Amino acid sequence: MIAAFGDDALLRAALDFEAALAKAQAAEGLISTETAEVIGQVCATAKVDIAELAEEAAHAGTLAIPLVFRLRTLIAERDGPAAKLVHKGATSQDLADTALMLQAKAGMSLIVAEAQGLTDALARLARTHAETPMLGRTLLQGALPITFGLKAANWLLGVDTALRRLERECDGALVLQLGGGAGSLAGLNFGVVERMAAALGLAAPPMPWQARRDGVAGLACALAILTGAVGKIARDVSLLAQGEVAEAFEPRVEGRGGSSAMAHKRNPTGCQVALSAAIRAPGLAASILGGMTQEHERGLGGWQAEGPVLAELFQLTHGALAAMGAVIEGLEVDAPALHRNLARADVGADTGESSALVRRALAHYRKDR
Amino acid sequence: MIAAFGDDALLRAALDFEAALAKAQAAEGLISTETAEVIGQVCATAKVDIAELAEEAAHAGTLAIPLVFRLRTLIAERDGPAAKLVHKGATSQDLADTALMLQAKAGMSLIVAEAQGLTDALARLARTHAETPMLGRTLLQGALPITFGLKAANWLLGVDTALRRLERECDGALVLQLGGGAGSLAGLNFGVVERMAAALGLAAPPMPWQARRDGVAGLACALAILTGAVGKIARDVSLLAQGEVAEAFEPRVEGRGGSSAMAHKRNPTGCQVALSAAIRAPGLAASILGGMTQEHERGLGGWQAEGPVLAELFQLTHGALAAMGAVIEGLEVDAPALHRNLARADVGADTGESSALVRRALAHYRKDR
Amino acid sequence: MIAAFGDDALLRAALDFEAALAKAQAAEGLISTETAEVIGQVCATAKVDIAELAEEAAHAGTLAIPLVFRLRTLIAERDGPAAKLVHKGATSQDLADTALMLQAKAGMSLIVAEAQGLTDALARLARTHAETPMLGRTLLQGALPITFGLKAANWLLGVDTALRRLERECDGALVLQLGGGAGSLAGLNFGVVERMAAALGLAAPPMPWQARRDGVAGLACALAILTGAVGKIARDVSLLAQGEVAEAFEPRVEGRGGSSAMAHKRNPTGCQVALSAAIRAPGLAASILGGMTQEHERGLGGWQAEGPVLAELFQLTHGALAAMGAVIEGLEVDAPALHRNLARADVGADTGESSALVRRALAHYRKDR
Amino acid sequence: MIAAFGDDALLRAALDFEAALAKAQAAEGLISTETAEVIGQVCATAKVDIAELAEEAAHAGTLAIPLVFRLRTLIAERDGPAAKLVHKGATSQDLADTALMLQAKAGMSLIVAEAQGLTDALARLARTHAETPMLGRTLLQGALPITFGLKAANWLLGVDTALRRLERECDGALVLQLGGGAGSLAGLNFGVVERMAAALGLAAPPMPWQARRDGVAGLACALAILTGAVGKIARDVSLLAQGEVAEAFEPRVEGRGGSSAMAHKRNPTGCQVALSAAIRAPGLAASILGGMTQEHERGLGGWQAEGPVLAELFQLTHGALAAMGAVIEGLEVDAPALHRNLARADVGADTGESSALVRRALAHYRKDR
Repeated sequence: MIAAFGDDALLRAALDFEAALAKAQAAEGLISTETAEVIGQVCATAKVDIAELAEEAAHAGTLAIPLVFRLRTLIAERDGPAAKLVHKGATSQDLADTALMLQAKAGMSLIVAEAQGLTDALARLARTHAETPMLGRTLLQGALPITFGLKAANWLLGVDTALRRLERECDGALVLQLGGGAGSLAGLNFGVVERMAAALGLAAPPMPWQARRDGVAGLACALAILTGAVGKIARDVSLLAQGEVAEAFEPRVEGRGGSSAMAHKRNPTGCQVALSAAIRAPGLAASILGGMTQEHERGLGGWQAEGPVLAELFQLTHGALAAMGAVIEGLEVDAPALHRNLARADVGADTGESSALVRRALAHYRKDR
Repeated sequence: MIAAFGDDALLRAALDFEAALAKAQAAEGLISTETAEVIGQVCATAKVDIAELAEEAAHAGTLAIPLVFRLRTLIAERDGPAAKLVHKGATSQDLADTALMLQAKAGMSLIVAEAQGLTDALARLARTHAETPMLGRTLLQGALPITFGLKAANWLLGVDTALRRLERECDGALVLQLGGGAGSLAGLNFGVVERMAAALGLAAPPMPWQARRDGVAGLACALAILTGAVGKIARDVSLLAQGEVAEAFEPRVEGRGGSSAMAHKRNPTGCQVALSAAIRAPGLAASILGGMTQEHERGLGGWQAEGPVLAELFQLTHGALAAMGAVIEGLEVDAPALHRNLARADVGADTGESSALVRRALAHYRKDR
Repeated sequence: MIAAFGDDALLRAALDFEAALAKAQAAEGLISTETAEVIGQVCATAKVDIAELAEEAAHAGTLAIPLVFRLRTLIAERDGPAAKLVHKGATSQDLADTALMLQAKAGMSLIVAEAQGLTDALARLARTHAETPMLGRTLLQGALPITFGLKAANWLLGVDTALRRLERECDGALVLQLGGGAGSLAGLNFGVVERMAAALGLAAPPMPWQARRDGVAGLACALAILTGAVGKIARDVSLLAQGEVAEAFEPRVEGRGGSSAMAHKRNPTGCQVALSAAIRAPGLAASILGGMTQEHERGLGGWQAEGPVLAELFQLTHGALAAMGAVIEGLEVDAPALHRNLARADVGADTGESSALVRRALAHYRKDR
Repeated sequence: MIAAFGDDALLRAALDFEAALAKAQAAEGLISTETAEVIGQVCATAKVDIAELAEEAAHAGTLAIPLVFRLRTLIAERDGPAAKLVHKGATSQDLADTALMLQAKAGMSLIVAEAQGLTDALARLARTHAETPMLGRTLLQGALPITFGLKAANWLLGVDTALRRLERECDGALVLQLGGGAGSLAGLNFGVVERMAAALGLAAPPMPWQARRDGVAGLACALAILTGAVGKIARDVSLLAQGEVAEAFEPRVEGRGGSSAMAHKRNPTGCQVALSAAIRAPGLAASILGGMTQEHERGLGGWQAEGPVLAELFQLTHGALAAMGAVIEGLEVDAPALHRNLARADVGADTGESSALVRRALAHYRKDR
């Protein structure tokens, strides 16, 4: 995930943007096919010093200017007049937003893979323990019997629902941005938008969206909610792993969970990663929400704030999913301890509709896939 | 909207919950029809001192206990054995969550009404000015010509998309909560859930959701995004209304927008309301996201924090929509000023595809309704 | 605390502002002493329909306009020419900001009283258990022995340090605001500022601060930090009160902590209140921080957002302090359970410097008072 | 600033921690002087593959374990028995917290340098324009005359006050953390704490603070407030630079502020950097506030979340200060435009006490240094 939002991937996305723009303009007759081919070749083969480019971009306040300057130099070596036609009609934010959405798309496939690993493991856990009684706890006090499967089914539905929300938000957010200097498509047309979107694997928007940030905000919130759903599992597992409760434990992993002071300790490191992510995510979502009131046709500061925040949300969510995927996959459930704690709480043995609810949840999950 | 989340509405929702619970249990044969009828009559007619009840609820840490105590006393006057059967199988959070969702449902109909008023006004504005040229501005600097309709169409799509997200989130969130002491439906069955949900006009969940808060979090985020989309309009209108720009103004409303120090001033009070809401909403959404990692079968503190925050988000969103609805409905656009500022910026007259984009946006909006 | 930020208190503060303004102007020779006296009498005795005033203020976008209108009418009955001289030189935000700071000052005395009750109780608890061994827990796992006093001393220093930060922030924030229409003191002078500040018990600023909101932001953050320090105690107590740990419990309070579903339960309701506050506070602080970038001499939306958010932070902090004050005052510590859990963890009996650290902490706390 | 929080600086701080710990223990007679010297030499000269170490730290869930393992190997080559004595009595969080505070201390000196550059430039600007009349604007509408110096003096006091708050918070936060496995100083004594603190240039705490995070939270909030105060200047400058207002402009910097679509544009890139930082900071502060309710003697997830968030706040604050320092240093004020806009607003020429207020603010600022 770090790679998906790294400088290399950003440069790749930016070059893909320029190549697709030229190709689409050629198909619409706005530039010649030969020009588009030269631009495409240069974008495919350009060697760029990324550290130098990043520094210039920070100085210029935009990546597009130093990158397009480099491309023009390279194109001019092959075809003088073509040099001016790269980036034609587009503006910095077109490139920045589209590149961010290409990175988000790559990030999503990593998220989905980890999330499905986790939900599949949760479904197995729920099935295995559909009828294993344990003490249900409310307000951190023993309440009534449930089954361990019911607890796992709740975790499952929490993550699965949050993943579906995220997928839905991607439908609305993973959209090409192309509008030109003021979002009017001056010198372009909607055919270019549709062709570029198709070529890059993004949706075409009804209109350029450079000053409408609800899509990015929706993505950020959905990531934060997914992280929260994973953090809820981590909260529970870490509480179950307390020495006095001792009902479930993270799997032992060589070199993980140790203490530099106490050799006897086995720390819930996977839960730590997920809880830490769940603590950070709400503020990051708020940062993106806080930038929505952007000025006029292109804001000052608001959208520029989004890239690093969104990248961080993707990384935290992915890290939390991966950590808890491994935890749930190898979760050690101590059935005698479950029984012992339940008996000690003296709240009877009626697990109500727990097993039926587990079956319902699993059916809901299967249908959903 | 204040009424929708007020104490009266909460009490009404709570009484509806208890009546529907009894009726559904009777239909499932868990209690007698006569008992359900007595409970229903008492819930329909009970006179409760709300201030006193609120104080007792704060002391008890839950509304259900003092309310159910009152209902039992009233029911016992009519039918002794029935008194124990009110609230049977349910727990405090079942009542609290379901009542909150009933209030949210009422709140939603107010939101939808205001939002549609605003989007309809925006659609009219976009249509009227589809071809009215003006200066497009980016990074707070003059950029290229657009049309005023393009600006309005952007506002329109921003609000409309955010409204549809909110409606989608309501589908997943306006759900009955009934699980009993530990969410296992002990002493109940899923038929009761389905019957109650239908009676109260809420969806039935695949499983009780008392410790899965993604639905509430989704609602909160969608409200914050909608507020942000409305705040974006307010940002733009207030910038256009600056004395040196003077391109558009809030309508004059008797007694509104005055200054206690300067009689000549005409303050953008509608924009102020919306911008203020947009500043407050992100933190409120973060508060709800921050409570998602709830403990075990029912958390301590997390869900109890949600009610007032969600109520505030509904109120802020509604207030922002109402304020900007009135602003857009009566917006005074000064076409000569648009022309003058555009000419002075000396950026040509090519509005690109602005009018075509407006038509696309309007078609997208109409299809969407 | 609800009263301190209620409509009555706001009206009282607003009337005090107007009376003090007139009196200070008279002392500086800007208006006559007779005029100031009439204004003062009307402000002292005015009967105002608060609900009606609140509605008009919401419509006008400011409280000052309808309030000053009422005052002028009342003053005109006594002294025609004096009517125009009420609110002279001031503007709406002068009144709004100063009134908010007067409310904050009243709120602070309630906070300090509750906080000192809590810290005194914590100091007693730390002293009593300075040498009572228990299991220290890290990352929710048993670690090494400590004493219960060490835990309590940590709680104590957490709250005490946060309280001192809040007091420090009050020194910088509880400041008169008076600047007039554009913050230039036009028609006024600095003598008026100093006299008014002294009369109202607020500090005088080096300059009007209507567009510098760091004082309010500092107050908000300090409240959130204090709430977090109290929430940390609630987190620990609720973990200690878990059935399997059973080392400490909230005191039994008649009618508190019950469950509507399970008669056997004893819920940590005080901890719930504090944890709920700690979940809400960070987002509220972020809301106020998010409004700091205010426009020019007086912002649009940013400062108007602060009042209700600050009021909420005061209420949440006060509620958390009161709840945990009662919890710590009556905390039931089960020493045999402490011993049993420590022995079972098998981590030796060396409590290190725990008792010495407790003494250091108590000395630090005493010196601090 | 990126270097101050980079991996190299973290490693350096961690090695300094271990060396200072050994030296302090030797001075207290807990280990031999020879052992401390060997440890000190190894810490001074150790070559560590940082990328490899970072990977192992991520796996282990803590930096201390793989680092101490490396140190032990290196020490064993020189002095077998000494190997076990590195990190003696300390735990992972002791190293992590202390290293973070050492990095924060380095970060602070960069912040202070940039902030003083900015405030000095602001003081000059205020002095130069103490009597330059301009239009004061409130709620984005022309209000009354002020002087440009009054505006600059407001900016100055905003940044200066926020800087002093940050310095105050550093007094309380830049504190050594040393407590051992459960914060009891087992195997250590307070003399070690005091000696280490002195050696590392940090304050000594009254007690180990590993589970009291108010210091870190105070730092985070103070950074966010400072960023907000700088963002307020950026908001104003960007509004003044609008084409229709044209009263002040960022200095022209070669290669900065250009547009990839429009050669005529001169974007306020410094303001963009500061506004972007001001949008991100509130959520980051909320993230740290949200982690304060840490469990028992050492939390799970809360403190681990702080490091990257605090680093980001330092970087954003520093970037905003540097950007606006350059903007204010070279700010182009167009006095005729100030005059023209003021005349057009037709609000008279009375700048009230503006110049006197500027003098007060400058005196306040000078006294403060």
